[in-house]
This record gives sequence, structure tokens and C-alpha cells, in this order.
Amino acid sequence: LADRVTLDRLNAMDAASYIAALGDIFEHGAWVAEAAFHRRPFPAVASLHAAMLEAVTNASADKQLSFIKAHPELGGKIARTGQLTEASKAEQGSLGLDRLSEEEFQRFEALNTAYREKFDFPFVICVRRHTRDSILNQFERRLKNTPDEERQTALREIGLITRLRLVSKVDGPGAPKTDGRLSTHVLDNVRGKPAAGVKLALFEIGKSARGLLLETITNQDGRTDSPLLSGAPLRIGTYELRFSGGSYFTAQGYEASDPPFLDEIPLRFSIAEAEGHYHVPLLMTPWSYSTYRGS
Amino acid sequence: LADRVTLDRLNAMDAASYIAALGDIFEHGAWVAEAAFHRRPFPAVASLHAAMLEAVTNASADKQLSFIKAHPELGGKIARTGQLTEASKAEQGSLGLDRLSEEEFQRFEALNTAYREKFDFPFVICVRRHTRDSILNQFERRLKNTPDEERQTALREIGLITRLRLVSKVDGPGAPKTDGRLSTHVLDNVRGKPAAGVKLALFEIGKSARGLLLETITNQDGRTDSPLLSGAPLRIGTYELRFSGGSYFTAQGYEASDPPFLDEIPLRFSIAEAEGHYHVPLLMTPWSYSTYRGS
Amino acid sequence: LADRVTLDRLNAMDAASYIAALGDIFEHGAWVAEAAFHRRPFPAVASLHAAMLEAVTNASADKQLSFIKAHPELGGKIARTGQLTEASKAEQGSLGLDRLSEEEFQRFEALNTAYREKFDFPFVICVRRHTRDSILNQFERRLKNTPDEERQTALREIGLITRLRLVSKVDGPGAPKTDGRLSTHVLDNVRGKPAAGVKLALFEIGKSARGLLLETITNQDGRTDSPLLSGAPLRIGTYELRFSGGSYFTAQGYEASDPPFLDEIPLRFSIAEAEGHYHVPLLMTPWSYSTYRGS
Amino acid sequence: LADRVTLDRLNAMDAASYIAALGDIFEHGAWVAEAAFHRRPFPAVASLHAAMLEAVTNASADKQLSFIKAHPELGGKIARTGQLTEASKAEQGSLGLDRLSEEEFQRFEALNTAYREKFDFPFVICVRRHTRDSILNQFERRLKNTPDEERQTALREIGLITRLRLVSKVDGPGAPKTDGRLSTHVLDNVRGKPAAGVKLALFEIGKSARGLLLETITNQDGRTDSPLLSGAPLRIGTYELRFSGGSYFTAQGYEASDPPFLDEIPLRFSIAEAEGHYHVPLLMTPWSYSTYRGS
Repeated sequence: LADRVTLDRLNAMDAASYIAALGDIFEHGAWVAEAAFHRRPFPAVASLHAAMLEAVTNASADKQLSFIKAHPELGGKIARTGQLTEASKAEQGSLGLDRLSEEEFQRFEALNTAYREKFDFPFVICVRRHTRDSILNQFERRLKNTPDEERQTALREIGLITRLRLVSKVDGPGAPKTDGRLSTHVLDNVRGKPAAGVKLALFEIGKSARGLLLETITNQDGRTDSPLLSGAPLRIGTYELRFSGGSYFTAQGYEASDPPFLDEIPLRFSIAEAEGHYHVPLLMTPWSYSTYRGS
Repeated sequence: LADRVTLDRLNAMDAASYIAALGDIFEHGAWVAEAAFHRRPFPAVASLHAAMLEAVTNASADKQLSFIKAHPELGGKIARTGQLTEASKAEQGSLGLDRLSEEEFQRFEALNTAYREKFDFPFVICVRRHTRDSILNQFERRLKNTPDEERQTALREIGLITRLRLVSKVDGPGAPKTDGRLSTHVLDNVRGKPAAGVKLALFEIGKSARGLLLETITNQDGRTDSPLLSGAPLRIGTYELRFSGGSYFTAQGYEASDPPFLDEIPLRFSIAEAEGHYHVPLLMTPWSYSTYRGS
Repeated sequence: LADRVTLDRLNAMDAASYIAALGDIFEHGAWVAEAAFHRRPFPAVASLHAAMLEAVTNASADKQLSFIKAHPELGGKIARTGQLTEASKAEQGSLGLDRLSEEEFQRFEALNTAYREKFDFPFVICVRRHTRDSILNQFERRLKNTPDEERQTALREIGLITRLRLVSKVDGPGAPKTDGRLSTHVLDNVRGKPAAGVKLALFEIGKSARGLLLETITNQDGRTDSPLLSGAPLRIGTYELRFSGGSYFTAQGYEASDPPFLDEIPLRFSIAEAEGHYHVPLLMTPWSYSTYRGS
Repeated sequence: LADRVTLDRLNAMDAASYIAALGDIFEHGAWVAEAAFHRRPFPAVASLHAAMLEAVTNASADKQLSFIKAHPELGGKIARTGQLTEASKAEQGSLGLDRLSEEEFQRFEALNTAYREKFDFPFVICVRRHTRDSILNQFERRLKNTPDEERQTALREIGLITRLRLVSKVDGPGAPKTDGRLSTHVLDNVRGKPAAGVKLALFEIGKSARGLLLETITNQDGRTDSPLLSGAPLRIGTYELRFSGGSYFTAQGYEASDPPFLDEIPLRFSIAEAEGHYHVPLLMTPWSYSTYRGS
């Protein structure tokens, strides 16, 4: 984020520099930046974003439509051949949508085709807030919308996409909240203390899931030194935390059966709020455990 | 079990009929039945078994050894070609040891060879009390024993094998406990009532696991109409219960996120006592769950 | 219950014997028994009760009112001087309403007076289904009813009173369910086994509560040999179970602080369904516990 | 704490000012301050305290004894007539030991007499780390010690007393940890969110307990705005948190029975580590709750 421009500088720029700086926040949408230019100065990053969104909302239905049409397909041929804007490339690349297996590519192609046939514009979604399974799930659901509902949905997603792009580009007060957080905490209910040194792994699970995301270990407070996920939107999808309970209990010298009743302890949950805080603790003994969404 | 002979009838038989009836309880061990014959009458099935075991214990080391050697290898060529005693065939077949994949067959062959080289007798284990993973685990562990320890272990396993064979053949009072039980109970902590109509599946998990064992649904009391496992020893190994929590909560009309925080809820645990009762309940809300070994 | 008459005998009796047998089920209400007489034979105790209730429901408003008026006041002077029907005496006596402290007597007097002034009939409630606190609570709530609502409520309570009286007097199939059950179960989550030998006490709590109801100890299965409460309706009210967790953990040799984090563990709950089953388990370690309404 | 002297200033003082400043840290023990004077400068408050304690440890047995004897009795006549040093007055006053009921006074008198008869010096304990029940409990236990054990115990308690006095008087780096903390957190497991607006009260319980200590309410994060107890040692003893669960659930519109199964939820626990952090959360639904020592 070293190259971010400050809001103060933006507020002081002439139109040309300003549009150069913000012209690619909205996909092929320099006009959006331009439309918001005269409303400077912006006291907060959020109000700059609101002004840009308003420009889209206030545009004619035709202009909105051609604007939506300027977005690339997801996992489509353009992505494969690398002919995306820088921002779209990074977004689709973050989920590997530019390097799908043949089977996955066919599935995206089929959905893209069906979608374009029904709506005559590409499927737009804020990729950074979703797992691949969640995108495919949204794809199928949104195919059932009416064209009008779907145009509104596309604009809402563009709001989410551009909010993220703007925050990554502009440094200033009043930035909208765009990141989520996933954390855990392991408690040892045999001794009433944090369970330190527990190995754990986080998996994304599902048909098209990325699998293992990270492995770590609990510290003296039974937490991880940094959140499991943070600094970005959480991807809506299904996850599993797997805790090496058995080896912790053995290391503590707790009585256990052979094999131990509990060894690897899986907690499976889904994330629905990309900007939310998910705290998923584990309270455990060699013979019991519980979890809940905490805070 | 329709063809079981009663203990009373056994107690009244002449030697020939008696040996005909019990001669195959101990593998190629009519002499064991014979040795126990003169100690009739037996007041309990357990005391008949004890008398037979004593005959083995009191035999000379040489006789014990040649007796152990008369047992077939596990998952070996004999099993493949079907040249097993009826009892061994049923036991090995119950785990599919007579139809291993090539890779598994090679693994058993390697272990059998290493074991025979070290101990000069086949690896004996009460197959009905184990999963394949547990057998392979025991195999590797027992390879580290001394020959003397291992001879004792083999005799203990023969005790377990023959206890099961005897109970399936003889009907009478004082039968030793040979079966275990796995049960569950699902509680809905939002409404303080049993969770009825929850779909659940039981899996055996692990590298060589059998996978899905059964699917069922909870009744009005939040239990299953019959135990998940019963009527036989539990197989020592690792299991996972998967409960369709999400669809239950939806059916109840409970508020949930999209996707729901909890959907399929996995409880993973290992069974160590083949003749024990494992009660593994699930207490749940759309945002929390807990489990423990109950009773 | 040794003197109960069978439903078969009742069905075969002449009118005089029949009325002699059932005339006091409804307070001063031989006419109710009489009215139901011609509907014999009754296949079930519940249908006999339903027929009697119908006689009341079908009576004129005047007759209903004078019938309700024939009931004694609760905790009133008549109770004090012992001039109650046998059934009412037993019912009020079961809660000590015939031996109230002066202060309690005054409170009942004030409520009885206010009630009679508003409704012109005595407050009728099925005493056996309530604690004193619950009766006082109902008294205050029902004072806010309209006369019509309250007449209906009184008739419903008479239904509950007579159902209990009938079941205690008539032995036969199809008896309505009139008893509730309170049970507990203590699990030791350190060792994954029932907590045996845990002392526990059950208290009724509240301003006018009876205090300690019973003390007992858990058996090998972590349960009590008989339910904590059973064989009668549960009294609607607030209760507390107190478990001697600390001495159990000490006896097990579990590590604990001095004083132990958990010693006497109180579980406080209210019973609302007099005929329900309340299962209130305790899952505990020296540093954690949980409870829930089980089944 | 506005009048505290800085460690820097202390390190720079001449002997007379230094002794004037620290002479009353050890009860009637200006000599202790004096003995540590020559070891200046002290890099940390803890090392100043250690130097003073060493002066006591290195004193002759006679001097130690007469030093111990200079301490006042607890809850004794001197306390009643107010003839205590300022520090002792504040310490004993914090528990109301200077205004005991007649019965309590007699109990302290009896224990003081028995103790003095056995040991010939007064019972010394760091009052600020105990509840009255805990002091009485310690009194009875320590009466069973040998004189030698008890002299060591008295010196350890003097270490704890003077550590607290020093920290309240001297401002500087490296202060020993003297305060504990009690906190809570209420989670609503029906909705998977913090339970905000839950009223709760903290009680000290036991025969001589102070009863209600504070009432508060949970904030948006389900926590209290400040810790329940902090900024001082926790008093070793037994406590109860009572949460108004019922009114929270009603306010949320959750289904409940009448009366609600859970209304006031008591969590009872003891504090053993005066300088520890006790986090005692409550996870609840209208039909279940759990607690544990968290972190």
C-alpha cells in the first residue's frame, strides 16, 4: 500500500491528475471519477466513494447497462489469455480464476453463457469477498433473478468491488470498513487455562475449495500470534479448523484411552459476513469439546 | 445364531459330540476342547471359555508355539485364495482382508514378512475388534515387542477371538460380554428439547477406512431408533458422525446467516474399548455446539 | 392408592354406589358424577373425566357459578380451622397452606378479599401443581382478568384438580398423564465418565419457598437411583440443584486451586410444565461446567 | 496515589529523608528501611522491596520475633479503639475488621487468644488479599502449624503486606504485580452474538461475607465497561455472579416457558490467586448455559 495517494492530495489535484489517479477504480469508468470531481473536497474516503457511486446511480439506464457490460467475465477466455485490466487480473487471480482446470473452466463457461443469454451483460461479483464455491453458488442463484433485480445486484457488487479498489489506492480518514477477521482461542478445561502449543490448521472446504490455507500454533494465551485471517475481506464460504488436541493432551500428561477419544478436532463453519469478525474458540478436555461464535 | 447349542446340552454330551461341537473354536485346536472336556459341567459360558484358555496356558511352550503357528496370516495369500477355516474366513472377510487392493496387499505382505522373520509365527489379532487402520497400527507397534511379549500378546488375542467364537456357538447363562455400543442424542438448545428429524451419517475414517457406515435420522426423542453400532464388538478405530444441523435449523425456522454458520457438523472421535458403550451426544444451536463422552 | 376402585367395577355399579364412589371428585359436586352416570361404560379413565367435565361445561352459567363458589378459599380461615373437605385438606396441606405464618396468612387474606370483591367467587387453583410462590404469582396475575376470563380459568383449574382426584381414586386404562419428573445426570469431563458419588441437594427457592426438598448422591451411572421428583405433578416454581463438585474432584485426585475454583455448583431453573419431564444434567470439570434442559 | 514519591527521588535522598519516606512500610520497622539504605540506588521498585525483605531475613531470630510481635492483632481491641498505625487501620478497615459485630469480635478474640497462646506473637496476614471468611479459614489452618512454620508464614505475609504498601507509596519502574482482575463476558448462543444489556451482580458469599459488591450491565460487546474487580489484589474467597438471563431473553423476544426455565443465572466460584486474572464467561440460551475459567 506504499503508493497510495492521500485524500488531501486528491482533494487538491486538478481534474486531469485526479482522473488519472482514480480513473480505473470503476472498470473502464473514468467518467465516474470525472462526475464526482466537482464535489471535492471529500472529508472522508467513504464520502468520495459515495459520490462516485452516486454518479453511477444517477446515470441513465442505458449508460449503467453499457457500464456493466464493460466488466469482464469470470473465469472466462479473457481471463485465460490475460487480457484483463490490472485490477480485474489481481481480483480474479486471487482465486485462481485465471488458471481453472478444464472441468472448472467448462462450468464457468456454461454459467457465463446462460447468464449472458438471460441478461445480456456479464456476471459481476466482488470476487475478493467469495470463495470459488460461493461464487458458483451465487452464479446459480442469481440466474433465477429478473433482469431488473440482477442489474441492481450487479451495481451493488460494483459498489463492493470499487470500495475495495478505492481503499487500496487512497489513504485518508473515514475509510469504509472492508476487512474481516477470523480468530480462535483454545482453552484447556482440565486445568482452567489457555491451551498453549496446540497445532492447528485452517482449511477452506467444498467442491472447488482451496484446501489448506494455513498452519499455526497457539501461544501462551491459547491464541494465535496474529488473526487467522485479517487485513482483507473474509471470503464467504465454508471452512474447517483442525486442532491437534490429542498431542496437546499427551504433552500435558492427561490420562487418555488408546487411541485417544479425541485426537484431531475439526470445527466446521461458514463465513457469511465478509467484513465481520468471526471468533471461533475451542473449549476442550480429552473427552469433550465445545465451540460457538464468540466476539 | 439359530444353530447355537445350549450349554446344558454341551454339559451332557459324550466326548465325541462335544469335540465335534467345539473343536473349531480354537483354530486347528480340537485338543483344546478335549482338554477342557473332563472339567464339565460348566455353570457358565465364561467358565467353559476359561477352562479352554487354561488348557492353552498350561500347554508346553512348544505346543503353544505350534498352536499359534497354525493361525493364518492376515490379508495374506491364503486369505486371497480362500483356503481359510470357516471362522477365519468370516473374520477376515468382515474387514475385507480377503479382497485387499494391490497396494494394501503389498503392505500386509511386507508386515507379515517382517513379523514372521522376527517372531517365526503369524501375526494373530482379534480382527472383529479392529478397523483396518487399527490392525495396521497394532502390527507396526507389536513388531517392536520382544518374542516373549509377543507370544503372550498372541495368546491374549486368541482368548479374544475364541471368546467371540464361543459366544456365537453356545447359548447359555454367564456369557462373557463381547459387544459394544455406539449411540448418540441430539439436543436443540434454542428450544430446550430433543432435536427430531436430524439426518446423520457415521463414517469410519483413516487411511484404510471403510468410509460411510450408515445413515439415519433422529426420532422424537433426539435419538436413533436403534444404537448406531451394537450387537458385536466395536471396531477400535476412528469415526466421524456428521449431523445435518443446518437443514434442521432451517426446518425449525431459526434465524441463520447465509450460508449458515453451522451446516454439516462433524464430531470426530476414536473408540478404544471394543466392548464399551460410547455415547456421543450433540448439543447445538445455529451458532454453537458441544459434545462429550456421555453414558 | 390401595383403595382405588377399578374402572370396570365403576362401569358396572348402580347409580347410588357410583355416586357414592365419585361424588366428591368435584368439590360438593355429586351432581357432576350423577350427570355423567348415564354415559357409562367408560373405556378409559380419561373419558370418564371428560364426561364429568362436560357436565360442568354444559351446566347453566348460574349453576357453574354456584359450583365454583362452593370451593374453599386458599390459605383462608376455613383452612386454618380445618373445616375443609378431605380432598381440599390434603391439597392445601401439601403446601402448608393450613399452617401459614401470620404474615403469609395476611397476604393470602388480602388477596382473597381483593379477589372475592372483584369476582364474587373464591380463587380456585390446582394447588398440587404449584409452589406457594407460584400460587401467589398466579393470584396477582389473575386479579387482572375480566370476570369472564376468570370464570373460564377457574373451570380449567377445576379440570386439573379433578383429574388428579380421579386418577388417585380410579384404577383403569387410559388414565390421563398427571405426574411429572425431575432428573439429573452428572458427567465428569476430565475422564469422560459418569461422576459417581456426587452429593447433591434440591431446593425450592423463592420468597415463600419450602427450601431444602431432598439430599441424595449420584450412583455409578452418575444418576440418582430414583428421579429427584416423580409420581405426582411437579410444582410450578423455581428450584436450585446444588452439587458438591469440589469434594468429588478432591476425591478423584484432580488438581485444584486452594480454595477450589468450583466447589458447590448451583443450577437454578424453573419448572413450568407440571406434567413435564425436566432432565437437568451437569457436565463438569474443576474449571468449567454446563447444563441444559435435556430429555 | 498522587502523593507517591518517585524511585529516582528516593535513590537521591539522604538517609533521614529516605527513612522518613519509607520508615512505616514495615510495621514499626524504620530499621528495615535503614538497613536497605546503603544498597541504593535501586533500579526497580521490586529490588528495593527485595532489599528490605532481605534485611528482615538476615536479622537475628530474636529481632525477627520482636518485629513480628510489633504487628497488631486482627479484629482485636486495638483495632476497635482505633489505636492502629495508619497503614494497618486502612488495611483492617477495608474488610470492616474494626467494626465487627459482637459475635464476630468474639470469634476473632478466641482465635487471637489461641494463636497467641500457641505462638506468642500475633496472627499476621495480608488482609488486602483475603475476604473475612478466608482470613478465618487461614486462622484455623495456621493454628495447626509448628511455631517455626508459622514464623516463616508470618514473614511471607509481611512480604505481601509491605509489597502492597511500597507500591502504593513509590512510583517507579519494575513494580511487582500486586493487582488481580475479575472479568466476565456474556454470549448469546441463540444468535451467536454478544449479549448486550444483561444486568448482573457480583456477590461475595460465605458466612462472614460482604454480600453484594456491585451491580452492572453488559455493553455491546457482552462485556462490562470496566473489569468487575481490578486495581488491587483480588480477595481470596467465594463469589457469585448473578445474571438476569430471563429479562434479556424476554427483551430479545425468544420463546420461553412461563416461568422461564432460566431466569437469574448464578455462577459460583472461588478466587485463589489474589494477583491472578479470573475471566468467568457465560454462554447462554433460554435453555442452557455454560461457564469456565477463561483468559
